[in-house]
Amino acid sequence: MGGRDERCDCGERADEAAPSELDAAALAQPRASERRLARLRAACDEDGIRSFFVRGTSNIAWLTAFDGVFDDEDAHALLVTPHDAVLHTDSRYVEAARAAAADGPIVVDDARKSHAAFVAETFAERHAGQDAPIVLGIEDAIALGEYRALEAAFADVVEPPRLRETSRFVLNLRGVKDAGEIARMRAAQAVTDAAFAHIVGFMRVGMTEREVQIELEDFMRRHGAEGLAFPSIVAAGANAASPHAVPGDARLEAGQCVVLDFGARAHGYCSDMTRTVFLGEPDARLREAYAAIRQANEQVEAALKPGVTGAAMHELAESVLAEAGFAGKMGHSLGHGVGLDIHEEPNLSPRNPHPLVEGNVVTVEPGVYLPGEFGMRLEDYGVVTHDGFAVFTQTTHDMVII
Amino acid sequence: MGGRDERCDCGERADEAAPSELDAAALAQPRASERRLARLRAACDEDGIRSFFVRGTSNIAWLTAFDGVFDDEDAHALLVTPHDAVLHTDSRYVEAARAAAADGPIVVDDARKSHAAFVAETFAERHAGQDAPIVLGIEDAIALGEYRALEAAFADVVEPPRLRETSRFVLNLRGVKDAGEIARMRAAQAVTDAAFAHIVGFMRVGMTEREVQIELEDFMRRHGAEGLAFPSIVAAGANAASPHAVPGDARLEAGQCVVLDFGARAHGYCSDMTRTVFLGEPDARLREAYAAIRQANEQVEAALKPGVTGAAMHELAESVLAEAGFAGKMGHSLGHGVGLDIHEEPNLSPRNPHPLVEGNVVTVEPGVYLPGEFGMRLEDYGVVTHDGFAVFTQTTHDMVII
Repeated sequence: MGGRDERCDCGERADEAAPSELDAAALAQPRASERRLARLRAACDEDGIRSFFVRGTSNIAWLTAFDGVFDDEDAHALLVTPHDAVLHTDSRYVEAARAAAADGPIVVDDARKSHAAFVAETFAERHAGQDAPIVLGIEDAIALGEYRALEAAFADVVEPPRLRETSRFVLNLRGVKDAGEIARMRAAQAVTDAAFAHIVGFMRVGMTEREVQIELEDFMRRHGAEGLAFPSIVAAGANAASPHAVPGDARLEAGQCVVLDFGARAHGYCSDMTRTVFLGEPDARLREAYAAIRQANEQVEAALKPGVTGAAMHELAESVLAEAGFAGKMGHSLGHGVGLDIHEEPNLSPRNPHPLVEGNVVTVEPGVYLPGEFGMRLEDYGVVTHDGFAVFTQTTHDMVII
Repeated sequence: MGGRDERCDCGERADEAAPSELDAAALAQPRASERRLARLRAACDEDGIRSFFVRGTSNIAWLTAFDGVFDDEDAHALLVTPHDAVLHTDSRYVEAARAAAADGPIVVDDARKSHAAFVAETFAERHAGQDAPIVLGIEDAIALGEYRALEAAFADVVEPPRLRETSRFVLNLRGVKDAGEIARMRAAQAVTDAAFAHIVGFMRVGMTEREVQIELEDFMRRHGAEGLAFPSIVAAGANAASPHAVPGDARLEAGQCVVLDFGARAHGYCSDMTRTVFLGEPDARLREAYAAIRQANEQVEAALKPGVTGAAMHELAESVLAEAGFAGKMGHSLGHGVGLDIHEEPNLSPRNPHPLVEGNVVTVEPGVYLPGEFGMRLEDYGVVTHDGFAVFTQTTHDMVII
């Protein structure tokens, strides 16, 4: 990324980053599922958990490594025992699940019963004759009503388990990505970079935020995204001072900066990027703020490596912003994990004292928000490597002036 | 809707159904919120519940009647007491929530604390000195971990409530729509009808399902939809035999039928429609099946009124299909409620013995699925009136042959 401001050259750059073919080995899903189940079983062993009942759909998608089977419905359950892993699903999904399960470690069961009845019966079969009580891990993200149903179903089991309520158990494992996941996210980001190049050529003073949003999202869908990672933000001028602005009928005006925060979903995985572009020559105040967020972004990206904590990275960004005269103007965490979901572990936030490890995929998104004036943000994402940080985002950090 | 088959005339019909201006009175949101809170308090009174703690975002969106404040994040909580209703939200949403709350019954609180701490403290203030224990209604859809946090937070309260776990409490109230909600859904359906007219002109043999899906969804976004009600289904030939098919690289072929199931989101509310179109003259088998689902659809729409049960409507459709030689070929429920969410109460299913009432908004979507051959479905939606059923969907039931 060049060091001087220039009129946008990102058209060329992003076009180079067309979605790459994913490496076949990286996508060998049965092996991925076996590796992930082994990681779950190892974590269970450490915590004295014998079997684990998974209900979160993204957790199930990760453990099974099935492609194109799951959608937004929480219609599935997975029981992982020391010796097998049984997916309980229904008639709408069973054909696709069976096809995806071929040659892999997942058994598919579409018996017409509740998930609670399924797990109680399967648990009783698998652990019959073992020393009771067996500890069964459950997710504390399940609905209270479903927990009551589990209690009722296990009341009929001769040797009921001891339920261990866990928080973010599988989600913590998902924080460390494998090569196949990284390849998928690079592909998702390539679509996103290309969409940025396109929208820079499209945006003009006088358009509404909403028009820009629609064009941006349509481009991603037509160029390899299977969906959006999240509803895009297109926020001009003072609207951008709210980090979660909803694009509306406000028209782009000369002299404004516009925040574009968007991401694609490709091969199941999310991308996430933010760029702030300028409509005509920015004034000194906008240049100062942009230089500050760029400094914060680049210093953090240079510092990221295994062993640093999420809190330390957040503090580093805050201190760069403060030095530039924008103390306390960020108001949100510096970054978050990304994967199958747009918000995963680990966070780059004051509340994360844990050291990062190789394979963590995180966003770096320092921002400055001045209510009534403007807001801006510069966001990349990438993966923590054995000795640093590999950025997926290919778009320039130079000021983009339209 | 005409009785004979014709080449598609739906371009003209759907164009007439451009999104109408919503009536200002129907959209008087502070009044809507007051009415809905009154309905919740009356239901609480009946069940001996004094105050109610709401965490489901759609439930909160309905009770507050706020426009454009909430997104997909479950970041909010609402405590409804006999005398007030306090929304707990965070800094990202507070400005928009305060603006939406003006002149209405909702108090907005953005104190930086957990929802559990918020409800424990607010409950203690509101019910101080009242005869204990007070019954506090909670939703059994809340996460188990959040329930544990509530238990912990109330452990510090001098006179803790008795927690009453409820199922679908607010959702059941949402099953009866008011005039403002019906106006919004008619507007959402107008976008959807227009998109169907457009796609019929766009679809050609040789395109992929995915190309058709992208064009359909892009049209809705560019013509008044703020988003999609759900990911669209475009399923050709044997792919359509799976009711939840995901559009893929399959190319449309002459002689096939294609199922299009899609909906827009407008003013917060969902639409939902399915049409099956034919690529060239359909053979006798396709005509038979289409006549059967059309008969089932129209007989149910003629029979719907207050007092009939969801189960009876489902059985009526099944019996029409069986008479036409397609017994047991539907495999899913006949219909479901629609509103802020795409699946709401009540269901037209064998498991719903309850009589429908005026204001219920439901889909009517009989289908026939012959694995390896084809699938087809014909879906409208509308509202149960005082003596019948008013269909929102304006697109013809005649066969559409492309």
